[in-house]
Amino acid sequence: MSNDTITRADLDALATGATVLGTGGGGDPYIGRLMAEQAIEEHGPVELIDPDDVPSDALVVPSAMLGAPTVMVEKIPRGTETLSAFEALETHLSEQAYATMSIEAGGLNSTVPIAVAAALDLPLVDADAMGRAFPEVQMVTLTLGGIDATPMAIADEKGNTVFVNTKTNEKAEQFARSTSIDMGGSCMIATYPHTGAELRKHGILRSMSYARDIGETINRAQANSTDPIDELIEFVDGFELFEGKVMDVARRTEGGFAVGEAVIDGLGSYEGRKLTLDFQNEHLVARDSDYGILASVPDLITVLDSETGDPVTTEGLRYGHRVTVVGMKCSEKWRTPAGLDLVGPRYFNYDIDYEPIEDIHMEIIK
Amino acid sequence: MSNDTITRADLDALATGATVLGTGGGGDPYIGRLMAEQAIEEHGPVELIDPDDVPSDALVVPSAMLGAPTVMVEKIPRGTETLSAFEALETHLSEQAYATMSIEAGGLNSTVPIAVAAALDLPLVDADAMGRAFPEVQMVTLTLGGIDATPMAIADEKGNTVFVNTKTNEKAEQFARSTSIDMGGSCMIATYPHTGAELRKHGILRSMSYARDIGETINRAQANSTDPIDELIEFVDGFELFEGKVMDVARRTEGGFAVGEAVIDGLGSYEGRKLTLDFQNEHLVARDSDYGILASVPDLITVLDSETGDPVTTEGLRYGHRVTVVGMKCSEKWRTPAGLDLVGPRYFNYDIDYEPIEDIHMEIIK
Repeated sequence: MSNDTITRADLDALATGATVLGTGGGGDPYIGRLMAEQAIEEHGPVELIDPDDVPSDALVVPSAMLGAPTVMVEKIPRGTETLSAFEALETHLSEQAYATMSIEAGGLNSTVPIAVAAALDLPLVDADAMGRAFPEVQMVTLTLGGIDATPMAIADEKGNTVFVNTKTNEKAEQFARSTSIDMGGSCMIATYPHTGAELRKHGILRSMSYARDIGETINRAQANSTDPIDELIEFVDGFELFEGKVMDVARRTEGGFAVGEAVIDGLGSYEGRKLTLDFQNEHLVARDSDYGILASVPDLITVLDSETGDPVTTEGLRYGHRVTVVGMKCSEKWRTPAGLDLVGPRYFNYDIDYEPIEDIHMEIIK
Repeated sequence: MSNDTITRADLDALATGATVLGTGGGGDPYIGRLMAEQAIEEHGPVELIDPDDVPSDALVVPSAMLGAPTVMVEKIPRGTETLSAFEALETHLSEQAYATMSIEAGGLNSTVPIAVAAALDLPLVDADAMGRAFPEVQMVTLTLGGIDATPMAIADEKGNTVFVNTKTNEKAEQFARSTSIDMGGSCMIATYPHTGAELRKHGILRSMSYARDIGETINRAQANSTDPIDELIEFVDGFELFEGKVMDVARRTEGGFAVGEAVIDGLGSYEGRKLTLDFQNEHLVARDSDYGILASVPDLITVLDSETGDPVTTEGLRYGHRVTVVGMKCSEKWRTPAGLDLVGPRYFNYDIDYEPIEDIHMEIIK
């Protein structure tokens, strides 16, 4: 338990860590960072509180941006709608929130709530509900804990607001997605109101400081000229899956999602092999031409620039780019049958069974 | 001013009148009638109050069904969602409604609020906000009076509810339409909360009793073996536009709307002429092969069975059907520049200027 703050100086490391945990997707963390930066500049640093310091019956309201990543890049929230969704939900619940929280530790939405926290002078809980990034509203560990996504408040920059009350979190996703399209492609949401006790039981704890630590690990290695990717793998207890040159990237937008695959030609010890990375916003499956599947969702598959060690999003992947692919274990919560039903490979239409990344790794090195 | 009730016995005439005022669209009045019938059977007759009897500051909340007419035929509301939208809006406004009201005098939605009124033991105001049927949420005289469509509550039969707060009534239409699709194609809404004073200024007054009178006029003529169409024309001060045989009906569904045209071959004094009826849910333009446009939206164009005098919806139009087309003047509120901007022929993508039906008629008989 510690009282911590997020200052402007932390945002660099946080954005880097969020890109690692974003596994290629989650929206450009640059936008979330920009929003957080402006808000901290205007309102001062944000208190980052440990989940253990949230009273059991206190109300925690996650805030997030929802929409197509390509639209979100061009339509940066003006600030008012980040607050109006949050405040509208508070009014609806007739209760002030004790704190806000990130719904995802990866991508844009890891830092968006910092802007909300700064502007409303609320603490941010050091937690999230994915431990990574996922594309849909229901894909949170809170769903596994039986927490409702609704009442959810949705707001745009024109002053329109929509409240959603649904019987299932999947339906909340559907309604929110349609609304985001009607709102011009993206919107701000306040969702999954829950208590401190529920958070401790069903959230992913201390993931904001974890994301910051990941970013600091990479940044420090870059400054000290040690290998950032080696340091990252050691820090996160991860696996080097592949290294090579991007030969082909096929991307298309499907229902607001960036869907496609990247093919990487092996270099060094990977020479002669090919890695195919399937993505639907996030990297979901890494398939080696010799060894088969090396990792799959919900485990994390991150691409980093082999030279600099900087994490690369699927939008940043370019032909000829020399990259290293790193795998990381997901939260144990996702490895349950209910977790795999919600975010396992079959949900994303891959006809494969999930196998924990460390088991696959053990088989290959045998 | 009179205190009146709507009983089961009235529903027959009301449904007939609503089909006349529905001008081919507005959804199948049979469903609204069925809902009203069940509710009156269970809860007793509904009090129909004159607009002058609504206190100036009393809250009037129109209720309606929204969705694709073809879906609405197959998905009759179970009853709970008719109330949950209404009650959710009352809760949101922290005020009990004094009465409910029909948003349209034509089609399905003329009778849907009867079910709401019966179940909640509320009076129904003898008024509506179109004086006919129109396909979109913003197409009401209340919009011309500056009344907001929102806060609007939307509910489905699964217990999902959505609240919409928008800056414009067009945006409310967009949000509600998307939600109706996510709710399986149709939903119940409570919308345009307004006061008794606003209703008297901006509503279409006494249109429910007018619809019932129209239905009674037709039914009485049918019983007495006089000509129902002549009687109708006399009662509504309308115009016989055409009589003939349906030769062709082209229908397609576009964005949830039934769009198409019917071609009618003249009979009797219309022999040798053709009438083309364009519809987008409702009949919008009647074009004569010799005389050009005979009537256009917002004036009313109704098709009736030449033998029985029963009004026919666009879905009921069949090849070989012998029909009479009758035109009726719309409310003066629609004939203003703002009214024509909202529901004139150009809004529906016809490159024609609106001309009042009585002026066209005068030119033709000259």
